[in-house]
Amino acid sequence: MNTPPSQRLGAGTPRLSLNRWTLRTTPIQEFLEAAASHGIDAVGLWRQDVEEVGLDALRRRADDAGLRVSSLCRGGFLTVADETARAASLEDNRRAIDEAAALGAPTLVMVVGGITREDKDISAARARVAENIAALAPYAETAGVTLALEPMHPMFTADRAVIATLDQALDIAEGTGSDAVGVVVDTYHVWWDPALEQAVARAGEAGRLLSYQVCDWNLPLAAEPLFSRGYMGDGFIDVPAITRLVTAAGYTGDIEVEIFNEDVWATPADTATAIVAERFEQLVLPYATPEHEDDHPFS
Amino acid sequence: MNTPPSQRLGAGTPRLSLNRWTLRTTPIQEFLEAAASHGIDAVGLWRQDVEEVGLDALRRRADDAGLRVSSLCRGGFLTVADETARAASLEDNRRAIDEAAALGAPTLVMVVGGITREDKDISAARARVAENIAALAPYAETAGVTLALEPMHPMFTADRAVIATLDQALDIAEGTGSDAVGVVVDTYHVWWDPALEQAVARAGEAGRLLSYQVCDWNLPLAAEPLFSRGYMGDGFIDVPAITRLVTAAGYTGDIEVEIFNEDVWATPADTATAIVAERFEQLVLPYATPEHEDDHPFS
Repeated sequence: MNTPPSQRLGAGTPRLSLNRWTLRTTPIQEFLEAAASHGIDAVGLWRQDVEEVGLDALRRRADDAGLRVSSLCRGGFLTVADETARAASLEDNRRAIDEAAALGAPTLVMVVGGITREDKDISAARARVAENIAALAPYAETAGVTLALEPMHPMFTADRAVIATLDQALDIAEGTGSDAVGVVVDTYHVWWDPALEQAVARAGEAGRLLSYQVCDWNLPLAAEPLFSRGYMGDGFIDVPAITRLVTAAGYTGDIEVEIFNEDVWATPADTATAIVAERFEQLVLPYATPEHEDDHPFS
Repeated sequence: MNTPPSQRLGAGTPRLSLNRWTLRTTPIQEFLEAAASHGIDAVGLWRQDVEEVGLDALRRRADDAGLRVSSLCRGGFLTVADETARAASLEDNRRAIDEAAALGAPTLVMVVGGITREDKDISAARARVAENIAALAPYAETAGVTLALEPMHPMFTADRAVIATLDQALDIAEGTGSDAVGVVVDTYHVWWDPALEQAVARAGEAGRLLSYQVCDWNLPLAAEPLFSRGYMGDGFIDVPAITRLVTAAGYTGDIEVEIFNEDVWATPADTATAIVAERFEQLVLPYATPEHEDDHPFS
C-alpha cells in the first residue's frame, strides 16, 4: 500500500486516531503513551486537557510521544440569545480556535448548543448558530483551522445541539461562504439518517468533510445516553457500510475512535486501546481504502 | 365557532382524542368514562385492549360512552427477513386492519420495526418495509382503513422503527401508489427535524396527513426513553408551533394526546385527564383553527 509516510509514523494502525474521551479517566500522560505504544499516529484532544496540562506543555507531550493532534473538541454553544452571553461565547470560540492552531490540530469540533424550556423557538436558535458560525469563520481562516460542525443525534437536539442532520450542517457550512467551515461525520450521531448516503457524498463534493469519528450504538441506552457509545461491532451500526460511504466521498484523513462508555473507562488503558485497535483493523480500516487503490493495487 | 357537530358530541374539548396509553394502568372502562366525563369525543385504542375486552365488546363500550375511536395502535413489525416470519407478520397486520375497521377507527398506526445486531443492513430493512406496506395497502383500501406510517424518533431506529423522518415515511407512502397509506405526525418523534415544516406541508399537499399526536419531550430522558413523553408544556417542544404547521397543512381531524410517563400513570385517571384537557386547551386547540376561520370569523 502507498500510504503516505505521514500516516505511518507508528508501527501499527494507519488512519486510527484515539480520541481522548475514549480513555477519559486515564491520566493524560498514560493516555498518550497507550496510544503511542499501540502504534497509533494521532489523538483527538479536548479543551479540558488544555486546561489541565497547559497549551504549550500539551503540545510538547504529544510531540514527544510522536502523536499528531487530529482534532480539538470542542467549540460551540452558539445558541444563546442574550447579546452579552453571545459575545462571551464568540470570544471563547476564538480562544478555542487559537488552541487548535497551537496544538497543530487541523480542525475544531463544534457542538452548537441546544434550546431551553423558556425559549423553545428552535428555528430562531438555528438561525443564531448560522449567524455565529459565519462570524467565526474569518478568524478560523486566519488561524488555519477548520470548524467542523457536528450534527448530533436527535436525542440531543434539546440540550446539546440544534444541528440534527448532516444536510442541515452542510446548509449552514455553505451559508457561511467560507472554505473553513465543514462537518464531522460521527457514526453514533448520523447512522439512522435515511439521507445519509447522499449527505455524505454531498459533504465530500463540497470539500467539507473534515473529520470522521467512529463508535457503535449500544442498547439498552445508558442512563446518560451520551455513554451508550460502544466499541465498533458491539452494537447496531453497520460501521463498514458508513466507512465505505465516507471513503467514497473522498475522505482520506484520520479516523477517530471516540467512545464514551463507563465500562470502557473501567478497563485498563492498555487493554481498551488494544480492543480499539483490533476492532478498527477489523471493521474500519478494510473499508477505508479508496476504491481506485483496489482497482489498481500497484499504482 | 363553526365546529362541525361531529366534533362536538361532548360538552368539552373539540378535536381532543385521549390515547389509551396515556392512562394505560387505568382499567379500560374507567378510562372510557374518564374521557367521556371530560367531554372528550374520541379515544385512540390499542390492540391490547382488543385482546383484553374482545373486539365487539370494546366497540360497544366505546359506543355506549359516546366515544369515537380515532385510531388503532398498532400494526407494523415489517422488517423481518425470514419468509415465514414475513407471512405471519402480514397476516397479523391484516387482522389489525380488520380490527380497526370493526372499531370504526379510520386509521391503523404502523410501527414498522427495527434491525438486529445480526443483520445491521438498514437499507435492506427499509426496502422490506416499503415492499410489505405496498403488499398491505390493497387490503386496507378494501377495509376502508388507512395505514398511518409512524416515523419514530431516531433513538428508536435500531429497535423499533427504521422509519426515522416524515419525508422518509412519505416516500414510502407515495411509493405504494395507494391513497390508503399516509403518515402520523407525533410531536415527540418529529419535533427535532430540520425539514419538519416542509415535510408537514408535503404530507398535507399529498393528502397523506392521517393523524396528529401530541405530547412533550421531557429531560432528563427516562430509563426507558419511550417514557419521557410528558404533558404538553412540561418539556422542550414548541407544541403551538408544530400545531400551526399541521393546521396550515390542512389537518382538521382528531388530535390525540399520547403520553407514556410513569408519573402520569401514577396519577388518578380523572386528575390526569383534567390536566390533559387543560393543556390541550392552552397549547393545542388555539393553534388548530384553520387560518381562514380567523380571517373570516362569520363565514
